[in-house]
Amino acid sequence: MHVRGACARRRRIATPQTQAQAQGQVVNCAAYADGCKVGDVAIPDISEVLKVEGQFVWIGLHEPSEELLRQIQQEFGLHDLAVEDAHNAHQRPKMEEYGDSLFIVLRTARPADDGPEFGETHVFVGPRYVVTVRHGPSTSYAELRTRCELRPHLLAKGPGFVLYAIMDFIVDQYFPIVDDFEERLEKLEEEIFDLTFDSTTTGRIYNLKRQLVTVKRAVSPLIDVCNRLVRFDMAFIPETARPYFRDVYDHVVRINESIDNLRELLTTALEANISLVSVQQNEVTKKLAAWAAILAVPTAIAGIYGMNFQHMPELRWQYGYGVVMGTIVAVCGVLYWRFRRAGWL
Amino acid sequence: MHVRGACARRRRIATPQTQAQAQGQVVNCAAYADGCKVGDVAIPDISEVLKVEGQFVWIGLHEPSEELLRQIQQEFGLHDLAVEDAHNAHQRPKMEEYGDSLFIVLRTARPADDGPEFGETHVFVGPRYVVTVRHGPSTSYAELRTRCELRPHLLAKGPGFVLYAIMDFIVDQYFPIVDDFEERLEKLEEEIFDLTFDSTTTGRIYNLKRQLVTVKRAVSPLIDVCNRLVRFDMAFIPETARPYFRDVYDHVVRINESIDNLRELLTTALEANISLVSVQQNEVTKKLAAWAAILAVPTAIAGIYGMNFQHMPELRWQYGYGVVMGTIVAVCGVLYWRFRRAGWL
Amino acid sequence: MHVRGACARRRRIATPQTQAQAQGQVVNCAAYADGCKVGDVAIPDISEVLKVEGQFVWIGLHEPSEELLRQIQQEFGLHDLAVEDAHNAHQRPKMEEYGDSLFIVLRTARPADDGPEFGETHVFVGPRYVVTVRHGPSTSYAELRTRCELRPHLLAKGPGFVLYAIMDFIVDQYFPIVDDFEERLEKLEEEIFDLTFDSTTTGRIYNLKRQLVTVKRAVSPLIDVCNRLVRFDMAFIPETARPYFRDVYDHVVRINESIDNLRELLTTALEANISLVSVQQNEVTKKLAAWAAILAVPTAIAGIYGMNFQHMPELRWQYGYGVVMGTIVAVCGVLYWRFRRAGWL
Amino acid sequence: MHVRGACARRRRIATPQTQAQAQGQVVNCAAYADGCKVGDVAIPDISEVLKVEGQFVWIGLHEPSEELLRQIQQEFGLHDLAVEDAHNAHQRPKMEEYGDSLFIVLRTARPADDGPEFGETHVFVGPRYVVTVRHGPSTSYAELRTRCELRPHLLAKGPGFVLYAIMDFIVDQYFPIVDDFEERLEKLEEEIFDLTFDSTTTGRIYNLKRQLVTVKRAVSPLIDVCNRLVRFDMAFIPETARPYFRDVYDHVVRINESIDNLRELLTTALEANISLVSVQQNEVTKKLAAWAAILAVPTAIAGIYGMNFQHMPELRWQYGYGVVMGTIVAVCGVLYWRFRRAGWL
Amino acid sequence: MHVRGACARRRRIATPQTQAQAQGQVVNCAAYADGCKVGDVAIPDISEVLKVEGQFVWIGLHEPSEELLRQIQQEFGLHDLAVEDAHNAHQRPKMEEYGDSLFIVLRTARPADDGPEFGETHVFVGPRYVVTVRHGPSTSYAELRTRCELRPHLLAKGPGFVLYAIMDFIVDQYFPIVDDFEERLEKLEEEIFDLTFDSTTTGRIYNLKRQLVTVKRAVSPLIDVCNRLVRFDMAFIPETARPYFRDVYDHVVRINESIDNLRELLTTALEANISLVSVQQNEVTKKLAAWAAILAVPTAIAGIYGMNFQHMPELRWQYGYGVVMGTIVAVCGVLYWRFRRAGWL
Repeated sequence: MHVRGACARRRRIATPQTQAQAQGQVVNCAAYADGCKVGDVAIPDISEVLKVEGQFVWIGLHEPSEELLRQIQQEFGLHDLAVEDAHNAHQRPKMEEYGDSLFIVLRTARPADDGPEFGETHVFVGPRYVVTVRHGPSTSYAELRTRCELRPHLLAKGPGFVLYAIMDFIVDQYFPIVDDFEERLEKLEEEIFDLTFDSTTTGRIYNLKRQLVTVKRAVSPLIDVCNRLVRFDMAFIPETARPYFRDVYDHVVRINESIDNLRELLTTALEANISLVSVQQNEVTKKLAAWAAILAVPTAIAGIYGMNFQHMPELRWQYGYGVVMGTIVAVCGVLYWRFRRAGWL
Repeated sequence: MHVRGACARRRRIATPQTQAQAQGQVVNCAAYADGCKVGDVAIPDISEVLKVEGQFVWIGLHEPSEELLRQIQQEFGLHDLAVEDAHNAHQRPKMEEYGDSLFIVLRTARPADDGPEFGETHVFVGPRYVVTVRHGPSTSYAELRTRCELRPHLLAKGPGFVLYAIMDFIVDQYFPIVDDFEERLEKLEEEIFDLTFDSTTTGRIYNLKRQLVTVKRAVSPLIDVCNRLVRFDMAFIPETARPYFRDVYDHVVRINESIDNLRELLTTALEANISLVSVQQNEVTKKLAAWAAILAVPTAIAGIYGMNFQHMPELRWQYGYGVVMGTIVAVCGVLYWRFRRAGWL
Repeated sequence: MHVRGACARRRRIATPQTQAQAQGQVVNCAAYADGCKVGDVAIPDISEVLKVEGQFVWIGLHEPSEELLRQIQQEFGLHDLAVEDAHNAHQRPKMEEYGDSLFIVLRTARPADDGPEFGETHVFVGPRYVVTVRHGPSTSYAELRTRCELRPHLLAKGPGFVLYAIMDFIVDQYFPIVDDFEERLEKLEEEIFDLTFDSTTTGRIYNLKRQLVTVKRAVSPLIDVCNRLVRFDMAFIPETARPYFRDVYDHVVRINESIDNLRELLTTALEANISLVSVQQNEVTKKLAAWAAILAVPTAIAGIYGMNFQHMPELRWQYGYGVVMGTIVAVCGVLYWRFRRAGWL
Repeated sequence: MHVRGACARRRRIATPQTQAQAQGQVVNCAAYADGCKVGDVAIPDISEVLKVEGQFVWIGLHEPSEELLRQIQQEFGLHDLAVEDAHNAHQRPKMEEYGDSLFIVLRTARPADDGPEFGETHVFVGPRYVVTVRHGPSTSYAELRTRCELRPHLLAKGPGFVLYAIMDFIVDQYFPIVDDFEERLEKLEEEIFDLTFDSTTTGRIYNLKRQLVTVKRAVSPLIDVCNRLVRFDMAFIPETARPYFRDVYDHVVRINESIDNLRELLTTALEANISLVSVQQNEVTKKLAAWAAILAVPTAIAGIYGMNFQHMPELRWQYGYGVVMGTIVAVCGVLYWRFRRAGWL
Repeated sequence: MHVRGACARRRRIATPQTQAQAQGQVVNCAAYADGCKVGDVAIPDISEVLKVEGQFVWIGLHEPSEELLRQIQQEFGLHDLAVEDAHNAHQRPKMEEYGDSLFIVLRTARPADDGPEFGETHVFVGPRYVVTVRHGPSTSYAELRTRCELRPHLLAKGPGFVLYAIMDFIVDQYFPIVDDFEERLEKLEEEIFDLTFDSTTTGRIYNLKRQLVTVKRAVSPLIDVCNRLVRFDMAFIPETARPYFRDVYDHVVRINESIDNLRELLTTALEANISLVSVQQNEVTKKLAAWAAILAVPTAIAGIYGMNFQHMPELRWQYGYGVVMGTIVAVCGVLYWRFRRAGWL
């Protein structure tokens, strides 16, 4: 175990803010050694810092200008294509290997009023540096950085561990989103099976399906990324860091499985809905048919005795009216009773 | 063959209960040698016991406190991440390899009133120890331990055999659950094809599907786990133990196949249900149409002779009434006969 | 080519029946050498027989007692787990390798009145023996044994060839079953597309699907079993026997494909059925609507002239009645003609 | 480039016809050397011909008798199982390797009035021979043979090239069939989306699906066959022949893809059909409901004034009749206008 | 960095136009060295140009005649089959390796009024040449050539880079098409869930599905092509070019994923549509049933008092008419209120 307070004494580099840092593009830029923060660093001073053996730099950028990215590129010798990708955003999650450095694209998610809101984080990792580039709506990594700094024995594992921490942080943000989806499915199920659904239910099922597809697209490529990181043979990802990436892998698989189950259940729910609508309509049609039959009887009989023939003996009978009314009631009663027994009413 | 009674003589370690054991977190903790129980062991005495060559320890925990887990961790040098997992539960079934030890997560199932109830068991296995950690509703392994102690020739194979016994025990609990599912499907089929279904049938189909998805999720990752155990090259899983894991593998595959079949049949049943509802409604609509047509005849004819025109010669005919009534009966009769022949009535 | 009669001279072992043989558990037990039957053997004499170089034993059991199985186990040194499986039945088709012996589980099928009837055959094969264990309803292998004995040049290939013969025999029993399925599908298609279906049609579609699923489950694991046998490197399966197993493999794949096609067609047939029911109902609804409209005309018009107002000039007209009747007929005629043209009638 | 006429001079073997050739079982049997036909050969003379170095024989059989096949078998040393297959037909497309010879089963297709008609061609290929066995309705390979003889530089590549030519010829026959399917789908689409479908449309969709399944079954195993031929290392398939098999492979994949697309579109078309039937029925139901409501108004009002109460003041009013008729017209008008606006009429 | 202007000085070859170039079959034919255009070249002079070390030729053809293709074939020693393919078009996207040259088939897409319009581009690439052959409606590569000439440091990588540029250019044309599909899906969703759909909606869903299938077929084979190019070991594709092909691969995967998602959503939308039609029809049927019941009441009651019996005491009551009318209104009111509460009206 490390003594946490031990780090405090080591902070010593005082750095004047550069312009980009002042504009909020550089959220954070610090050097670390032996799991402890050495101090904040200005972008142009990075090469100076990296001369010290055992130090590495962790830079956090937010929607950086092309100019700033070019500066970072020159500092660490990043590949043209990766830098282009990092500038443009709208990539799918992936991992690219360029020489001894990695470029990783991740999609971040944040719950919003009507479903999750997506952002992107691009990570450049090399033996001596980690650069995160945030795009779109996403939570800052300041909190994560603080958490890492509180665990110097892990942070001492270098950029590999920082990469794990970032991936873990991003993947864990999908759990509340999946939980929210599950709740929404349960509400839909209640509506459907309590027969309180209406035409907006279908819309909400579709909407949930749509969001599931989007989350799936953000998460499922990570299975492959994590898999490769676990099997990866790179200097800056020490053997002891692999179980950590395996842990992230497990989380990704779990989220992925939940989404697949939700999709399957949603499909079934939609079918069940169609089935129930049919069953209901069947019942309505039966009721309609039964009442139509019952009500047609008095109409037909009364119609007959409403005819104006001169020679209709029944019309002159003393109890003709009573007999006809009785017949009507009897026939309707029998019909009602038979429909009831047949389950139509 | 071993003489079963031979073990009895060997029991000799008398152990004072520790606090955790008193609180029910440690359900059982015993040392074994040559297939025989040597005696119960208190957690702090484990290192003492392991000094004796050829002995191994089998500990059964139930929802242990973090403190107790940390103690166990130090005793056997378990990995941080595995211990965290074991404390948190809600993992998906998996197997992790940490150096020469294994961490296995299994989901247990127990039939309950409305579908199966799930728990979790985590197993740490090393060359000289087995630790099981139970979470949620699940059957105690006391019965299993007794059964193992009755087969000393197998128990002599060490922790590898204990792992097999636990997995076999857990997997076999899924068979009655699958049987119950099959019975429920058969009842649903009867309802559907005897045309006695109503709107709750769909709900029960959906419910069964939902539970199938959950069981599938608990069982299917075990295929991979068993597969790796069969192929695994580890000191504490002797060559002769592999057929046993292959046996567990077979059971898992069988359960998995049953679930897949049930899913496919359920999907077809739901579709058949929709189809039957349509067929039924078709018949109702035809009946409705036929009767509406038959009953519209007297209404229309009687309406005509109910008109008050002064010059309607038929009204004065002697047999006008009879002829009209005859016509009505004849037309209705012909219609009835034709609908009957067309299968509408 | 071998001279078939050549075998006859070699039969010489006369064996007293043991108890199990008397009870019908041992259907057959004979020794073979150079493709010829040497003679029937009592179970306890097997070890004697195997002392002769080049001889092998083929035993046929039918639902044997545990005792008899244990006897066989000791004779050939079979594995505990395989013997347990052979006793319990209800296994899924599989192949297990235990040292230099194989344990194979196969599902047999026999056409019955309402779909196929399933049994199980377990085969133990070693370098010098074949043991078949039949469970449930299944055809005896006596006929197969006779057929093999008539082909001494093949039987001379030893237990490997006997295994092929058994598998071929079992797999070929699935062809008439698949043919029967195809006939039933054709009948269902006729019903559906000749529009003579009723609510039992759906039940029969479902039933066929259910049986397909069961047959699929019995057959599809054999693909893997045959595949491994073709690639298998075992002393008692000579290189020249492989094309034979490849032949069985081909048959299994063909049955499997037929089942998959049947499933797909059944699913489509069910959907087509739903579609046709809808089309039919549509036509009924249109007819209903058309006739309701046509018949509503006289009712409405006649109703109007049935009103009892004192001042209704038309009632007193000489030709009022004729004009109204003409109007009714004309309107109904126009309606009928328009509905006809629109294809509603 | 070869001079085509150069071959003509080489033909010199004059062969008396054998009985089988006379009966039409042997369609063709010729020897080739250096890409040129040497002459027709009688079956019994084959061994003679093969003594000449660099010659190979190409035999075309049509539903041969078992006797003839046995003769061929002895000539080339073919495997028992392959010969049995070649005699029985009804195999699925496959390729078997027996020593240095290949046995290939192919399904041929020929357009007929109501969908394709299938035959089978079995090909035995060895270093010095090609034997084709045709079963069922299929085009003769005479035309193909002529085409090959016109390309001596390719024919000089030996039996491997002949095999390619046959496969290419057979596979290319599937293109017009797929084209025909596409046309039929387009006609079905027109019917469905122009709303001119009736209950036979579903039948034709199903029929097309059924034929697709059959063609798929004939073509898809060829992907694997071609793949293995491309990767195959056999003396009689020279390295330079591989691009040709890759070409066949491409065609098979293309046909296969077309079929898959057709299947997917057909499934969607069937669903679209169901959806459209529902939409149509919905419209009919709305119309029915609207007209029923409109026509119920005069019936109900007229019914009221048709009552025979002695004290109904309206009946005596001068303009009672006019007012009531006006009311009826007004109410019906309002209803009509509102239904129209709601899109029900 | 290269100085762009540096290239200008190097242009020196002046070439007389050949006939094919005059006819527009040869769109462009130029030689390049060190990333700079050396000058336009006539087809017959190519061999001359290739004598200069380090130069390569980039030829752009448009629907070339067979004659021209043969000329090109002889110039570069292309394979017969590839040239045949290039002449015929209607290939599926693929990559073939012939010795040290590649033949690649790509499908191009261009947005048109009613969905995308497809063309084909075939590319021959060798160590010293790139030949593109355009078929059908497709954009000229003149613009692309200019863009490449502006990046001499990349063009200096030789034919491998030109291949990348062409593939990137073609693949990027699919993005606006996918965007258009997404917009059309959104419009369809609006129609469906705002309940403004009619029978053309289904037609448009189907149409979109059909186009998706076609685009999928054009794009998905490229995944495999790019994959092989990334892993490919060929002299003219330098190690440094691989990240570029990986970039194309990423784009293809992204387009492919978008299409899969669109397909899944379309399927769900069609099902949602069916479900909504049913829900709507259910509501219409309920309304119809409710109004039919309400309107049947006055008809039936009025019918009864319209009978002509001589002895109907109510007819003579002073307030008979009022009471009956009141009853009718009351019953109708109660019915209306109950239907309302049940949600039928």
